[in-house]
Parts: sequence; structure tokens; C-alpha cells
Amino acid sequence: MKDENIVYIGNKPVITYALAVVTQMKEGNDTVIIKARGRTISRAVDVAEIVKNRFIPDSDVANIEISTEELKKYDETTTNVSTIEIHIKKKD
Amino acid sequence: MKDENIVYIGNKPVITYALAVVTQMKEGNDTVIIKARGRTISRAVDVAEIVKNRFIPDSDVANIEISTEELKKYDETTTNVSTIEIHIKKKD
Repeated sequence: MKDENIVYIGNKPVITYALAVVTQMKEGNDTVIIKARGRTISRAVDVAEIVKNRFIPDSDVANIEISTEELKKYDETTTNVSTIEIHIKKKD
Repeated sequence: MKDENIVYIGNKPVITYALAVVTQMKEGNDTVIIKARGRTISRAVDVAEIVKNRFIPDSDVANIEISTEELKKYDETTTNVSTIEIHIKKKD
């Protein structure tokens, strides 16, 4: 039983990612990590809240981490972008 | 010395809120709480990262909480919105 799995948030509707998290939990993963950068961070929080409140009531947010990544742009200059990791875990 | 203070994130530039957090910390508040809802959640993470990495290197994220609030719309119907609280604390 894989302990951790990752769902990366992009620009699709929130429900798409919520169902991805639910699917991974139904497949036996106790912890699923939702990862997002920049503007999709808000959507990552939406996904976590929808999974926890609607789909898997016996899950909870175990941990949230934020950090900064350096991205290389097309013209070789770099820019900073914020990132978030939300760990959703099934309650024991 | 007030222990906690709150900075609400709106639609102004990130630097505006970063300086608000810095000001409150310089005024002696050990902990400042950054609060945001909906789409401004991404900006709240940016603010926390900028304060921690650039302005006050001896501060850190002590805690992050996410939740859902119910908002009443103009037509009296309600809608859910995600919220975030990021606690920035000076290292001891």
C-alpha cells in the first residue's frame, strides 16, 4: 500500500483534482499530497477543503508547507514563485 | 507588547501587505497572522514567503490553517469560500 501520492494542481476545474485525491485515497493511499505553485495555490486549498468536507469526512489536513522556488524564464532570467504542499490524511 | 496582529490580504500589490507585516513586527509583535480568502490565498503565501526570505530572515511560519467560510450573496443565496491563516513568528 503506497503511503504517499501527489496531485499537482493546474488550471482544470477544482472538482477534477478533488476526484483525483478521492480516487487515490479509495485505492488505499492513507496520505495524499496536494501540490501547487503561484496562482493555483488558492485552488489547492479549495481542493483540500472539498475533499475534507464533502467527499471523505474522515480525512483531515495533516500538514501544510509553503516555500519558494526559483523558475527560469524563456530569456534565461529567473523569477521566484511560491509553492504549497497540503497533506491530506485519513483519520486513524 | 501585543502578542498577535492580523493582516488581511486584498487586491493591492504583494509588497503592500509584506510591509504591513514587517511594520507590525518592528512595532514589537512577535506573531503576525496573515488572513486571506478565495483568490487572494495565493497572494497571502507570497506575502509570507517575501517577509520570511527578504525582510525578516529570523522569522518563520509557525502555523498554517485552512478552512471554509459560508458567504451570503446579494440574492441571499450562500456560497462557500476557502480561507487561510498563516502565522508568522519571530524565532526565539
